[in-house]
Amino acid sequence: MHSQHFYTLTASCPDQVGIIAKVSGFIAENGGWILESSYHADALTGQYFMRIEIKADSLPFLLAEFRERFRVAVAEPLQMTWRITDSAVKKRVVILVSKQEHCLYDLLSRWQAKEMDIEIPCVISNHDTFRGFVEWHGIPFHHVPVKNEDKDAAYAEVQRIFDDVRGDCMVLARYMQILSPALCEANKGRIINIHHSFLPSFVGAKPYHQAYARGVKLIGATCHYVTPELDAGPIIEQDVIRIDHSDSPEDMVRYGKDIEKTVLARGLRYHLEDRVLTYGNKTVVFR
Amino acid sequence: MHSQHFYTLTASCPDQVGIIAKVSGFIAENGGWILESSYHADALTGQYFMRIEIKADSLPFLLAEFRERFRVAVAEPLQMTWRITDSAVKKRVVILVSKQEHCLYDLLSRWQAKEMDIEIPCVISNHDTFRGFVEWHGIPFHHVPVKNEDKDAAYAEVQRIFDDVRGDCMVLARYMQILSPALCEANKGRIINIHHSFLPSFVGAKPYHQAYARGVKLIGATCHYVTPELDAGPIIEQDVIRIDHSDSPEDMVRYGKDIEKTVLARGLRYHLEDRVLTYGNKTVVFR
Amino acid sequence: MHSQHFYTLTASCPDQVGIIAKVSGFIAENGGWILESSYHADALTGQYFMRIEIKADSLPFLLAEFRERFRVAVAEPLQMTWRITDSAVKKRVVILVSKQEHCLYDLLSRWQAKEMDIEIPCVISNHDTFRGFVEWHGIPFHHVPVKNEDKDAAYAEVQRIFDDVRGDCMVLARYMQILSPALCEANKGRIINIHHSFLPSFVGAKPYHQAYARGVKLIGATCHYVTPELDAGPIIEQDVIRIDHSDSPEDMVRYGKDIEKTVLARGLRYHLEDRVLTYGNKTVVFR
Amino acid sequence: MHSQHFYTLTASCPDQVGIIAKVSGFIAENGGWILESSYHADALTGQYFMRIEIKADSLPFLLAEFRERFRVAVAEPLQMTWRITDSAVKKRVVILVSKQEHCLYDLLSRWQAKEMDIEIPCVISNHDTFRGFVEWHGIPFHHVPVKNEDKDAAYAEVQRIFDDVRGDCMVLARYMQILSPALCEANKGRIINIHHSFLPSFVGAKPYHQAYARGVKLIGATCHYVTPELDAGPIIEQDVIRIDHSDSPEDMVRYGKDIEKTVLARGLRYHLEDRVLTYGNKTVVFR
Repeated sequence: MHSQHFYTLTASCPDQVGIIAKVSGFIAENGGWILESSYHADALTGQYFMRIEIKADSLPFLLAEFRERFRVAVAEPLQMTWRITDSAVKKRVVILVSKQEHCLYDLLSRWQAKEMDIEIPCVISNHDTFRGFVEWHGIPFHHVPVKNEDKDAAYAEVQRIFDDVRGDCMVLARYMQILSPALCEANKGRIINIHHSFLPSFVGAKPYHQAYARGVKLIGATCHYVTPELDAGPIIEQDVIRIDHSDSPEDMVRYGKDIEKTVLARGLRYHLEDRVLTYGNKTVVFR
Repeated sequence: MHSQHFYTLTASCPDQVGIIAKVSGFIAENGGWILESSYHADALTGQYFMRIEIKADSLPFLLAEFRERFRVAVAEPLQMTWRITDSAVKKRVVILVSKQEHCLYDLLSRWQAKEMDIEIPCVISNHDTFRGFVEWHGIPFHHVPVKNEDKDAAYAEVQRIFDDVRGDCMVLARYMQILSPALCEANKGRIINIHHSFLPSFVGAKPYHQAYARGVKLIGATCHYVTPELDAGPIIEQDVIRIDHSDSPEDMVRYGKDIEKTVLARGLRYHLEDRVLTYGNKTVVFR
Repeated sequence: MHSQHFYTLTASCPDQVGIIAKVSGFIAENGGWILESSYHADALTGQYFMRIEIKADSLPFLLAEFRERFRVAVAEPLQMTWRITDSAVKKRVVILVSKQEHCLYDLLSRWQAKEMDIEIPCVISNHDTFRGFVEWHGIPFHHVPVKNEDKDAAYAEVQRIFDDVRGDCMVLARYMQILSPALCEANKGRIINIHHSFLPSFVGAKPYHQAYARGVKLIGATCHYVTPELDAGPIIEQDVIRIDHSDSPEDMVRYGKDIEKTVLARGLRYHLEDRVLTYGNKTVVFR
Repeated sequence: MHSQHFYTLTASCPDQVGIIAKVSGFIAENGGWILESSYHADALTGQYFMRIEIKADSLPFLLAEFRERFRVAVAEPLQMTWRITDSAVKKRVVILVSKQEHCLYDLLSRWQAKEMDIEIPCVISNHDTFRGFVEWHGIPFHHVPVKNEDKDAAYAEVQRIFDDVRGDCMVLARYMQILSPALCEANKGRIINIHHSFLPSFVGAKPYHQAYARGVKLIGATCHYVTPELDAGPIIEQDVIRIDHSDSPEDMVRYGKDIEKTVLARGLRYHLEDRVLTYGNKTVVFR
């Protein structure tokens, strides 16, 4: 993490000889100073992935011109899927929450400490529980109830708010509703969830109770992109914690919270720093 | 963790034949239902340690009478150091904080969620930074500046407030002042600190910078009782996180916070649940 | 772990008031010195579990008499399922292996170092690969091929050898054959397997390839008792290791071996020290 | 890890614009296919580090010519410290051991399984304990006693054997002698040790006993390059394991072995795969 102003280029393309040379050659010709760079070739798919941080003031032109020149000189010849972001433009993160506070407190604590250099344009919840806490932080709070008989209206409202505040990503910080397939599709790669199990074990409801019933010796949490199939999207980050026979499902819920908030924060950070590239149902995470 | 009403008996005494029999015999004779019990014999010192949870309503008398009977029948004959606490009486935890929010947010989040069943009679800080946040939670906030020329006055004021609210323990939630030996001695076994290194490595100031300079591959945090000797008190809990060559001291500070708040919360919980017994400069932790 | 001579009593019974008092009272009346003791009440099933180590020479009688007296005075009144073992009688562990050496080397290394105080009366394999290595250690080696057309004969031979050497437990140290239900049933609670995934994820063949396909960020291993249902027996121990997008299935196999041998050794040790009690499909592990 | 034939280029040089472009440009011009590449800029020292794997048969010339051309075109202009190794040339690893078997068994197990694609030209020990075990594997064994009155002669003999077998690195697999400064200097960056503590805690003798005395809650192991100052060389890899109050120093020794062999194997692998670059007393480890 640099305090400097920099651009982050992420790209993937079919693997071939000379990719790094072309990309780094283009950057060097324009005087670009590379702060950090990572590359990965996926042997199975023959796909090549990269992430490069370039010092902004080392380049003789602005981002718009970089985009145009890079597209012509490098991206199109190499058939790249690519993007470049500007560290000076804060990402706009919309938090969705229900009635559990641990992830919400954790994210707002990081935002307060400027540990995550983001805007939080609003928090959305299907309950009114955290209005006071969120508003105390100066962040708008939207109560959008999700009624069984009309979930579509609720999700339409969520989408409307997200669009309205020009959100970059939605974080489901223990949001206990299953999003509609339409919402998932419309925001593909931009909705991040924390699931309270070590996926693919214990998909769906009450995973700690499932874990208790199976008698596992570690429990975990998984941060993943949301797709229409429940708890099956690309995994960004996971971690586990040790339990034993003396731990009740309630104890597991409590321990689990510590893992959930940490794993969500790590996964979200990777996403916000453009460290995550997805392919198929998997991720490359350039830490 | 039980939602039931129970008493927690902790004791240590010289090891001999029949200790468990005497203690559990006394409890059984009075109809006491044991919910959880742990025992440990320290081979080196010949000291015996125990912790027993007894269901409150299984006993035919109240705590005062238990204390008197147990003292005569068991504790004195076995030369015990002992105490018994009541789960219905919430511990009163005074939080001391400086300018970093991660541990404060974390503790208040757990308190809000009733994950820690405690009273927080007040928060004390050498800065006024978190007054609004703390007071929003309905908790009194005391700004006690610590001036180099008169630290004793500040610590006297901390002690006065602590006594005034009848505090059971002080938690130094990244309180960046070194307490006076007098304050440490007066509250022995009741002040819990989180140090941002894996002790005994990197005692004192800027441990993450020390860790960076040495090139370690893991960094950690240590929750311990405060004693007059800096960062040398009995260790309650520790944990570590992996770093690598690409992490700057600033990155370590950021990673470290995640470990600090988790380790502090775990250590504090063990203390509050009377799971920690100290002997010499070490602890028995009955998890 | 004590170098002393001791007995280990393990028991379970329906929970009621006074269990510890009765058991420890019986031991104390006979002068028995308790070295270590652990208790657990399972809230869901109302079952009570315990494990007690008693110094052998503190008792005025031998194990046979202890058994008889304890049965009458304690075990039958409390409707206990129980056993008591003697630390002076080494457990006889039969190792089954196929073509991968990591667990075999690891177990023989621990046996050589007397870290595990066991007898290894023989090693059985469906291949002849490790005959020389095993025999060099002075341990008999049995090559029992498992042919698809007559697996029953092979498993009958395994059982015959196991009975012949009076084995106490079988360790499947990456034995790549699925035991017959008959063999599993006949040796219930005495066959320990290491599965190369974090169960219940990735049951069955090629779990690392399954893990690769799903894109998980941690892989694991599980030590469990073998039951007729594949990879579904009571779990004794588990652990995980971090991987990332750059790791191929072959890399995972390699990393996984380190977890497999460690988890198997830990689980086996718990079993050999009578630290594992099973109930339903779960375990109590008194570490 | 690839089964392919490849070259590994490692280099460091003062940071400037265009390093990656120059290096990857040179490789691309010659048709070189990059399998894996990692880069790191150290902000503090202004030094740049890299590691690149190039498919051998993608280049139109052999390694000698690559070396010459690269030197002239890239390395000298950039003031590089660099080397390139050939995956077809197995590294020659000399193991030094005393009387504990766990690391020796572990390394030979990996060598047998071809998990480490190395030659082990000989094992050297100050005891004769493992002669049979080592020779059974077809590996020459040298017993070089280290006598207090003439250690220099012993270390001269170790050096003679190492030179004689053209060793690439020495692994101190729990070799319980302190090497002479002369031996350390003469083989700088080529001697790898496993120390049984989480350095910088508990330098020197009996670290587990030191850890027990301090009452830490985790113990660890450290793989590092040997320098004349005891246990103070550049750290390659570390890890820890949880203990508690019930663990004696002997238990810690036993747990510690599991960490020692794993950490040594990981650190050694990084070294053998040319993933470790040292600067000052620190390492860059491109995993």
